[in-house]
Amino acid sequence: MKNPLRVACAGIGNNISALHQGVIYYRSSDEFDASSEKWVGIRNNDIGGISVGDVQIVAGFEVHADKVGRTLEEAIFTAPNNYVRLPVELPASGVVVRKGIYYKDGVLIGMEEVVRELIASEAEVLLYSLPTGLQWAADAYAECALEAGVGFVNCTPEIVARSPEMMRRFEELGLPLIGDDLASHMGTSMLHREIIELIVSRGLDLESTFQINLGGNEDFRNLRENGGSKAVSKKNALAQMGLDLKKVEVIPSAGVINSLGDRKVAFINVVARGWANTPVHIDLKLDVQDSSNAAGVIIDLIRICGLARRKALPGFNAAAASFLKSPPGGHGQSQSEDEKDAFLLLNEA
Amino acid sequence: MKNPLRVACAGIGNNISALHQGVIYYRSSDEFDASSEKWVGIRNNDIGGISVGDVQIVAGFEVHADKVGRTLEEAIFTAPNNYVRLPVELPASGVVVRKGIYYKDGVLIGMEEVVRELIASEAEVLLYSLPTGLQWAADAYAECALEAGVGFVNCTPEIVARSPEMMRRFEELGLPLIGDDLASHMGTSMLHREIIELIVSRGLDLESTFQINLGGNEDFRNLRENGGSKAVSKKNALAQMGLDLKKVEVIPSAGVINSLGDRKVAFINVVARGWANTPVHIDLKLDVQDSSNAAGVIIDLIRICGLARRKALPGFNAAAASFLKSPPGGHGQSQSEDEKDAFLLLNEA
Amino acid sequence: MKNPLRVACAGIGNNISALHQGVIYYRSSDEFDASSEKWVGIRNNDIGGISVGDVQIVAGFEVHADKVGRTLEEAIFTAPNNYVRLPVELPASGVVVRKGIYYKDGVLIGMEEVVRELIASEAEVLLYSLPTGLQWAADAYAECALEAGVGFVNCTPEIVARSPEMMRRFEELGLPLIGDDLASHMGTSMLHREIIELIVSRGLDLESTFQINLGGNEDFRNLRENGGSKAVSKKNALAQMGLDLKKVEVIPSAGVINSLGDRKVAFINVVARGWANTPVHIDLKLDVQDSSNAAGVIIDLIRICGLARRKALPGFNAAAASFLKSPPGGHGQSQSEDEKDAFLLLNEA
Amino acid sequence: MKNPLRVACAGIGNNISALHQGVIYYRSSDEFDASSEKWVGIRNNDIGGISVGDVQIVAGFEVHADKVGRTLEEAIFTAPNNYVRLPVELPASGVVVRKGIYYKDGVLIGMEEVVRELIASEAEVLLYSLPTGLQWAADAYAECALEAGVGFVNCTPEIVARSPEMMRRFEELGLPLIGDDLASHMGTSMLHREIIELIVSRGLDLESTFQINLGGNEDFRNLRENGGSKAVSKKNALAQMGLDLKKVEVIPSAGVINSLGDRKVAFINVVARGWANTPVHIDLKLDVQDSSNAAGVIIDLIRICGLARRKALPGFNAAAASFLKSPPGGHGQSQSEDEKDAFLLLNEA
Repeated sequence: MKNPLRVACAGIGNNISALHQGVIYYRSSDEFDASSEKWVGIRNNDIGGISVGDVQIVAGFEVHADKVGRTLEEAIFTAPNNYVRLPVELPASGVVVRKGIYYKDGVLIGMEEVVRELIASEAEVLLYSLPTGLQWAADAYAECALEAGVGFVNCTPEIVARSPEMMRRFEELGLPLIGDDLASHMGTSMLHREIIELIVSRGLDLESTFQINLGGNEDFRNLRENGGSKAVSKKNALAQMGLDLKKVEVIPSAGVINSLGDRKVAFINVVARGWANTPVHIDLKLDVQDSSNAAGVIIDLIRICGLARRKALPGFNAAAASFLKSPPGGHGQSQSEDEKDAFLLLNEA
Repeated sequence: MKNPLRVACAGIGNNISALHQGVIYYRSSDEFDASSEKWVGIRNNDIGGISVGDVQIVAGFEVHADKVGRTLEEAIFTAPNNYVRLPVELPASGVVVRKGIYYKDGVLIGMEEVVRELIASEAEVLLYSLPTGLQWAADAYAECALEAGVGFVNCTPEIVARSPEMMRRFEELGLPLIGDDLASHMGTSMLHREIIELIVSRGLDLESTFQINLGGNEDFRNLRENGGSKAVSKKNALAQMGLDLKKVEVIPSAGVINSLGDRKVAFINVVARGWANTPVHIDLKLDVQDSSNAAGVIIDLIRICGLARRKALPGFNAAAASFLKSPPGGHGQSQSEDEKDAFLLLNEA
Repeated sequence: MKNPLRVACAGIGNNISALHQGVIYYRSSDEFDASSEKWVGIRNNDIGGISVGDVQIVAGFEVHADKVGRTLEEAIFTAPNNYVRLPVELPASGVVVRKGIYYKDGVLIGMEEVVRELIASEAEVLLYSLPTGLQWAADAYAECALEAGVGFVNCTPEIVARSPEMMRRFEELGLPLIGDDLASHMGTSMLHREIIELIVSRGLDLESTFQINLGGNEDFRNLRENGGSKAVSKKNALAQMGLDLKKVEVIPSAGVINSLGDRKVAFINVVARGWANTPVHIDLKLDVQDSSNAAGVIIDLIRICGLARRKALPGFNAAAASFLKSPPGGHGQSQSEDEKDAFLLLNEA
Repeated sequence: MKNPLRVACAGIGNNISALHQGVIYYRSSDEFDASSEKWVGIRNNDIGGISVGDVQIVAGFEVHADKVGRTLEEAIFTAPNNYVRLPVELPASGVVVRKGIYYKDGVLIGMEEVVRELIASEAEVLLYSLPTGLQWAADAYAECALEAGVGFVNCTPEIVARSPEMMRRFEELGLPLIGDDLASHMGTSMLHREIIELIVSRGLDLESTFQINLGGNEDFRNLRENGGSKAVSKKNALAQMGLDLKKVEVIPSAGVINSLGDRKVAFINVVARGWANTPVHIDLKLDVQDSSNAAGVIIDLIRICGLARRKALPGFNAAAASFLKSPPGGHGQSQSEDEKDAFLLLNEA
């Protein structure tokens, strides 16, 4: 590794299993696609001199009793984690998962230890990927990042990068803050949107459409009960095109299918009307490795965040926008230009 | 009809059945979508003041013995035509299908009669949609259009608008020439391309993909035997993205399924590789009314052609480009700008 | 109608809409399939001389305020009912929907009126199809049937025909009691079971399988919240083959898709292992009209029940077994023989 | 191997690759399914004391120049063979593929050598699986089997076991003759038939149905051109249920999809009519390893044939019937009883 990027992880779930195994996999593999001149499954071989294999996890935080105290390479395979075991030998990482921040009797415990570990491990980036819904935890880890002087990447829908106050504080300290909410590397909603956009652009009319998602990991268990807000956000994403929302139905978690493990299966159905009201029917099935969908995006976000810290580019970095669902300020008109410019800056020698 | 557009048709197949029935349907229907402020299934309610219902078929040419001598409203339902019967009463058109151009003992017969009928019927546009593969017939009807002074729309892959000599002759006479080869209103290849483009844009790698098409009309019978050139052209369309052609397989007609009638069913399968080489599988089924797919495009092409003739805009009209597979000069970079400009010109009062 | 069968209905939901419209449809239609010599979609044209068109609804009970006091032909189209409107003119039935049995301050109200109406309408059969879960209502209507001397058909999973005490009382009064729980005319579970059975019979091994169901009617709204017991019962049905239940996952309602209306869409996925552990993948989509699935079974059950009453064949009638999920005593080995014998008896002149 | 069954193979295609690799795989694997008490993917662990791992290929015949002279373990991976490489180390077999029988100047060459090799290798069974359509080759190899005194299994649709004269000659010599034409272990037609049978048994009416098959091996290349007779035979299989053949469409090879390799993908569509003519739609996709589908059946047929020879049970053996498409005399009413009796006889000590 000529140029290791040192990453600390808050939450050692499937995403980190995918990230850690995948990085080792790329280091040892020769999955270089000659026709596209790139590593298979990777958008950017190299960002500012940091290649995929340069990412190194140097610290991990968890509250799950079965994971705390284990080595990273043990913890990532501890239930309920169920990401696939990639065909690669994992070397000893030397990283032991530490107890993360938690609430006890109304008091936050463990922030000091997290800060100390961030500093001791010489982490450059803190990657936050706890289960959805713990705003207090996102806030607490962001505080630790500020205190330890590391960049912060928020994978969840909690409000961190969208908080103007938090953004100001990172900017003042010259630190990057990247978020919020990972977009999928290849997700149901983007496929759904592409199809609807094509139909509308050709002058056909959408009659009705639905999207349902199934999976076997903890996310789907949570979403089955608490999918309401996610359904609304997914429908809003689709509604950006000016669609009548009554025509669109989205079920983020139609149920837990244990045999899928960490895979996600989605079904999309579209009924449209063409010439003389004659129907067009589209049925689509998507089958993906759910946490690969996260890791394929995280790999770029942490490299952008780490580089931005090294280059003293504080706050949000526009190069990250298309891999996030809710960047601060939303997805604007000039996004792709801004993104291109940001990448140029990062890649400058 | 405040502003009838007079159209003559060479070939009275399913496309013309869809066109004629559909125009009557829109005239009598109230399928106006309030949320999109447009007629259901129509891209442009109005082009330069010509609305959908203003189209009027005033002459028809055929060589099929069962169709010649019949009224238009009879001929469109004569086998092997099998487009659906739309829920609309067809008024008497007053149009009797005439014998079209044919070869006998190496001599072309019937051109004079066609020219005479074009003039007598006061047609503004000659719409050419005979079965694929008859270059001599496309040439002959184009000659008749020149002779009679009407615009020409070529729905087939025969080379007419791409012939510089032919284009020059239409331009010299101040007549529009629109072609070649209809794009579908909502086709398998465009859906296929959108999905592949999305995958590539996100940094995933295409491993393999196939597309197969099934139908029950005469086109599928022809293609089953002679689909080679169509497979090549469809693969080339997909290859424009820089894809390795060995990864793409296309079967334009996997066979004739009589029970589909004029419907087309297509299956698309895509296997891609994401993070750490983990797979992404997409399966899609598309079910469309095949000749609606043609009529939904023809309705714009004939209005563009008719308007261009009225406005003395000779030759190819860029407003037609996105509805054609092979416009003269191909699909260029600045196409969408040119298209917009051309539409502005057509819509000027 | 040479031989009307007089039926009273407790609950005027989609099932009754399908039943009533369908009976009128068959009376007026000529959908007789010459190749199979039967009415399209009907298993038995005629049972003991009662043909499909002979069924006549003579009374209806409901508690839904919008339905009470309406005529039958109005009530069946009152929300939340959303069964399709069949292409048939409905004549005035003369039936006004009466207020059904309900609880008020811990007291059952309305039983006397129901009994009176059953007698006044000369009903032969009381068809019980209220929403699932109201055991007290099923009991109360069964009491009314006993009191009024009519046969009883229970469409729901409530325990009526499986109650030995209730069965004894019907038998003592010489009345038929048919139940419990309608099997679908063409259901997801039976398709699922056929496929699994085929796999097992050929010596392949089931690795995992799931089944999910989507719909837009009230049943799916209820099941989304309370599907646990239904999932267990559906898995048990599949487990009868000696399958390892851990390999089977069933989601009775993956969510409500309003645009489906009364249609049901199900997805079945099967992964099996063949020679040398190589995989077999099966994906199936089923799309049916949910309440047609009920009416196609009810039409036989009410004819069996009515005939059994006329012929003084009290208690359960074995001819009904294969159209029920939980007949008293379950589905035994000799069922098909018993069913055949029962039909012979019913059909005797 | 306590009890090796010695098999010679005419044709070293994908089927033999699947068979040979699979046998080694089972010998070395522990894929024993505890819940079903059997080897994964195998119908009969043991037939008359011969387990799957006891099968031993002792001779092979081919005319393909690239295969002749190679060892068995090389030849099975020689193009156009493209069966998957199973996760197992293949030990040296000691078998070198010999030149098989061929025509030169109207004269059959090589029969003597085949007979000599059959005797020298002490083969008990000759397994015939050359490409479909070579009746002369099937005849010639059957002659060799008679001459060498070995049993014969015909995997192809050529007429061997259905030839009364050929059957008589095997019977006279006390040799078993098993054929004709392998049924699939898990095939499209059997799935298709199960679904149609279910629909018909419930009283719904079939409106239309189609089945299409895609693959990437040599069989699909042949069938694309010459699938007519196969389509007829597949439709006939479906028509045995009394279906109107006009409602059924079958495309044995819709085209060659190279990326599928030896996998087969089939799409089945069924439209039926239920209560009041409301529609039922079923769409199914089947994805299988094509030659595993053959090997999973061959493994039983060769054990039945070998055992029958050892036990002096000449001619056809009824235990083989359900794994053949065209057993002599067809699939009769009493087949399952006969099959059971035949198995009992084979399994007797």
